[in-house]
Parts: sequence; structure tokens; C-alpha cells
Amino acid sequence: DSGLSENLHLQKQFRSLGILSARTGGGPQIMSMDEAVKATNTQVVSIQMPRDTKGGAGHGSLIIVGGDDVSDVRRAIEVALAAVPTHFGDVYNSPAGHLELQYTARASEAAHFAFNAPIGKAYGLIAGAPAGIGVVMGDTALKAANVDVLSFASPAYGTSFSNEGILHISGDSGAVRQAVIAAREVGLDLLGTLAGKPKNDFPSYI
Amino acid sequence: DSGLSENLHLQKQFRSLGILSARTGGGPQIMSMDEAVKATNTQVVSIQMPRDTKGGAGHGSLIIVGGDDVSDVRRAIEVALAAVPTHFGDVYNSPAGHLELQYTARASEAAHFAFNAPIGKAYGLIAGAPAGIGVVMGDTALKAANVDVLSFASPAYGTSFSNEGILHISGDSGAVRQAVIAAREVGLDLLGTLAGKPKNDFPSYI
Amino acid sequence: DSGLSENLHLQKQFRSLGILSARTGGGPQIMSMDEAVKATNTQVVSIQMPRDTKGGAGHGSLIIVGGDDVSDVRRAIEVALAAVPTHFGDVYNSPAGHLELQYTARASEAAHFAFNAPIGKAYGLIAGAPAGIGVVMGDTALKAANVDVLSFASPAYGTSFSNEGILHISGDSGAVRQAVIAAREVGLDLLGTLAGKPKNDFPSYI
Repeated sequence: DSGLSENLHLQKQFRSLGILSARTGGGPQIMSMDEAVKATNTQVVSIQMPRDTKGGAGHGSLIIVGGDDVSDVRRAIEVALAAVPTHFGDVYNSPAGHLELQYTARASEAAHFAFNAPIGKAYGLIAGAPAGIGVVMGDTALKAANVDVLSFASPAYGTSFSNEGILHISGDSGAVRQAVIAAREVGLDLLGTLAGKPKNDFPSYI
Repeated sequence: DSGLSENLHLQKQFRSLGILSARTGGGPQIMSMDEAVKATNTQVVSIQMPRDTKGGAGHGSLIIVGGDDVSDVRRAIEVALAAVPTHFGDVYNSPAGHLELQYTARASEAAHFAFNAPIGKAYGLIAGAPAGIGVVMGDTALKAANVDVLSFASPAYGTSFSNEGILHISGDSGAVRQAVIAAREVGLDLLGTLAGKPKNDFPSYI
Repeated sequence: DSGLSENLHLQKQFRSLGILSARTGGGPQIMSMDEAVKATNTQVVSIQMPRDTKGGAGHGSLIIVGGDDVSDVRRAIEVALAAVPTHFGDVYNSPAGHLELQYTARASEAAHFAFNAPIGKAYGLIAGAPAGIGVVMGDTALKAANVDVLSFASPAYGTSFSNEGILHISGDSGAVRQAVIAAREVGLDLLGTLAGKPKNDFPSYI
């Protein structure tokens, strides 16, 4: 309904809208939609990150894509949903917190919309919760490889008051990947000291 | 104490203050207070919505009313508390999220204060969590009846980063009620597909 | 890494940084760091309070201190960690919410950074959750002793949307302590009516 879409704070109006909404996870859904908009004739028109994860330390997500054709929009949602398990592959949980790593060799619209990733360049997301773990992971990543810092999000800056430290990086694909992998290693060590070995629910993809 | 009330960010100073505060629920308490201020010689001076619900997707509430007579204020709190179970009648929960529907034929001060509802006109609140369900419910409501959109709240706009989509509507009482009922139906269907049939703890009142 | 520290929103740059990060608790960690910076050659450069407590009503914390010597920074973290149990001594939990009381005869940098406490003067923190309990505790405190109100934080003002009412006071050390103790008494009574007697995990220190 046009009365609704005018009140949805969308970046642009479209005839059809597709919605991806989750209690747990922002990064996995955003990176999945990043693939979906690359593969379909759709655009990202809103990305919002509630403070959720059902009592956990992180975010949920509300992502809206638009297209002029309903079949394109439906296809985008299908592609994104199919990619979500992959992008949970480097999300590691323990009772004390979580880690999240994301990597793409070519960032597209969703990573740009949400995290200001330069389109077409490699992008990496390095997150740790509680936030102090994310700070150490970010430091490790930047010492491991020569990459550009896009931003560092923390409870009071660039998150929805989540208890996360999140480094966003860009640059040469090999360097970004190397930085992400180095951060994952130290994150698993640190979080593992608090409440047992962190576990991922899907196979690692990075 | 005056040193406190000056720091409470109240809209207006009164000799007596009444407090309604909850971990779970914003809408039910606000609509209950809406009845209470109609029935007593009191005014709403603050409505704040923490991100709470004890790990759920929504809000809690802190509502403060003021009056020049302590017995008026006490009466307002009694009336509001008595009305709370009714206004939880169309709150439906499942492990995946929740729905909330509220309706009044004549909005008063609390609905005006919190949601900008025009005083004396019919008002409806249509909420779904996770937020995407609220978007679809809102769309359904606006297609079902000819009502005015007051606003649509979502994780990044008009909520405290809750994982809800919340449509606020006003208009002819029959139309508002019809829109709310249509939204409830689609909300129960959608949330029901995720983690079993959503349940209300008190009888539906709409 | 300097690329990280430039993006950490630190008040001042240092060669070494120490990090104290927790899922549960802001006040206890901040007051513990307040002792630590008094005892070491370090400075507070960031205090952030996520909305956390693992589904509870309050905050977590991310505190960063800086120093020119790594051994000073390490010592600050050790002192702070050793003080944390003491500062949880007047944190009382029940399934319905929590209370937190803090008191120092001489506030230092961390209490100043986080809560604007005048350095060198007595400072008290009086918090109740759900927020309405904090309002009543604050009122009781201000009626019990002649102290200065620094601020009152609540879900929409000065918290990260936590469900807390938090009074920050300063003044004569005897008066601040008396106000804190009076507030604790009424807080234990009120929270105790909701879901059983609130319990502290460590011995009370105030």
C-alpha cells in the first residue's frame, strides 16, 4: 500500500517490495542479500538492525528490497534465503558471546548500503561480542594484512547498542581475507576462554 | 522530591506523580493509561519505552502521570492496572516473536502522547515481531479499510531498536477496527508458520 | 593498530590500551575502573554501555583505558578486575529486575567520564529496574539526605534504552552514603514484592 511505503523510510519507491526479517543476525542476512541483488534486477531500499538475538549480544535484521517486477523481487528473496546458511558459517556462539566473520571478493549494494563498503571491491566484517573481543580481533586483523578501515562499530557508535565490536574493512581481496582469518583465530581463542569452545551451526565458508 | 522531578524530563510539573512501569509491554500499559486519564483528573507527563521484554523482541514501559491531588493519581494507577489484562488480550506470543493489536474508539492523552493519536478519534495499533511481519500486517490493514496512517515505526525509526514493525492508524471507528482485525488475521498466519501457533494470555477484546 | 585506535572514538590517543568488557554490568565495572585509574598511571579514554545483561533489564560495558607504558595499563586492568566483585556487592537480582547501588567517598576519572561525577567528591549511584522502581528509590534518596542531583537516567534519557531509573548524586560523603542506604531499603522492598527476595552474589560493601 502506498500509504505504508511512504512511511517506511525507503531510499526509493518501487512497485514491489521484498522483506527479509530475522530475530538473530544482521551480517549473515545482509551479505546474503548482497548476493541476491547482484543476481537479480532489484535494489536495496532499507536495512535496519534491531537490538535483538533473543537475549544475545547482537542484532536482528529488517532488509527491504524493491523492484518493478514482482517476480524479480521474489527471486531476490529466494536467492538471499538460500545464501543465509552459508553466511552463518563463520558465526560462532558460546554462552558468553559470539563471533562473526564475513568476507566477499566483490561487495555489492547491500554491503554498501549497510556498511559503506565500496562496490566491486573486497569487503570484510570482523565482529566479536562482548565488544572488547571485537576490539582485539580488529587490532589483530589490521596488524595481519594491509587493508583499509571503513569503520569500527561499538556499543555507542554504529550499532543499535549491541555489545559488539565490529571492524569493517576493504581492499585487496587476498589481504582482506587474510585479515579476517587472523581475526577469527584470535577471536576463537579469546571467546573460548570465557565459557567453552564457540560453535558454528554451519560449515565455515572463509 | 523536586530535585528528582526536575530531572525526570516531565512535560509538566505536578504535586503528585503516579508511576506505571513494566518489563514486558508498552502498548498494553499505554492504552490502559489512556483509559485511566480519561476517567480521572490526571495528565500524562512522561512515556518512555525501554528495549526490554526479557529477551523478547519488544519494549517495556515507564509511564508517569501527574495530578494535584494524590487520590486522583492513585485512582489513575488503579484504573490503569485494572485495564492492563484487557489490553494484553490481543498480544499473541510464540517462541519466534509476537503480535500486538490495540483499538480504541476514542483515543485520549496517553495514545496522543506516545503515538500522536488525534484525541477523540478512533485509533489502532498494529504490531508484529520480527519486524517484517509488522510490515506485512500494516500493508494488509491499509488495503482492508480506508484509514489514516499516523506513522510506521520500525527498528531504526520510532522504536527503541525493538524488532517490531508498528503501524499507527486513525480514522472512522468502524474502519480502524476492520483494519486491525484484518492485520491480526494475517499476522497470526505468518507468525504461526515460524514456531507454532501464537497464544494470547488473556481473551481478545477487539 | 593506529588505524583501529583512530576509529575507536577515544578521548585521547595512547601507546597502550587496556580493555574491560562485560555482558552484564556497567556500574560495577566503571566503579572498579575508577579505583584502578586512581591507583595507576592511566587514563579513561572510552566508556560505552551496550543494552545487554543477557536478556535482563540493564547494561553491559566496554571501558578502555590508555597509558604510555604497557605495564601501567596491564596493572590498571588487574586492579579493576580485582575490584569488580566488591562493586557487585550491592547489585541485587530477582526474576523481575534488579537494583544497583554504588558509593565512593572520592570519585575519580571513570565516574566523572561516565556519570559526570565531580572528581574528589563523594558520589553515589542508585538504580532500579524496572525503571519505575528506580524513580521511587531516587525520590527516597533525595528525601533522606541533602545531596546534589547530578542527573536522573531513564529508558529514554541517558541510558541505552535499558529498563532502569538511575539517580546520580554527589555531595558530602556521609549524606551521599545515607541517601544510597535509604534507597537500597525501599528498592529491596519494592522489587521483593514482584518476584521474591532480590539476591546479591557478593557481600554488600556500602
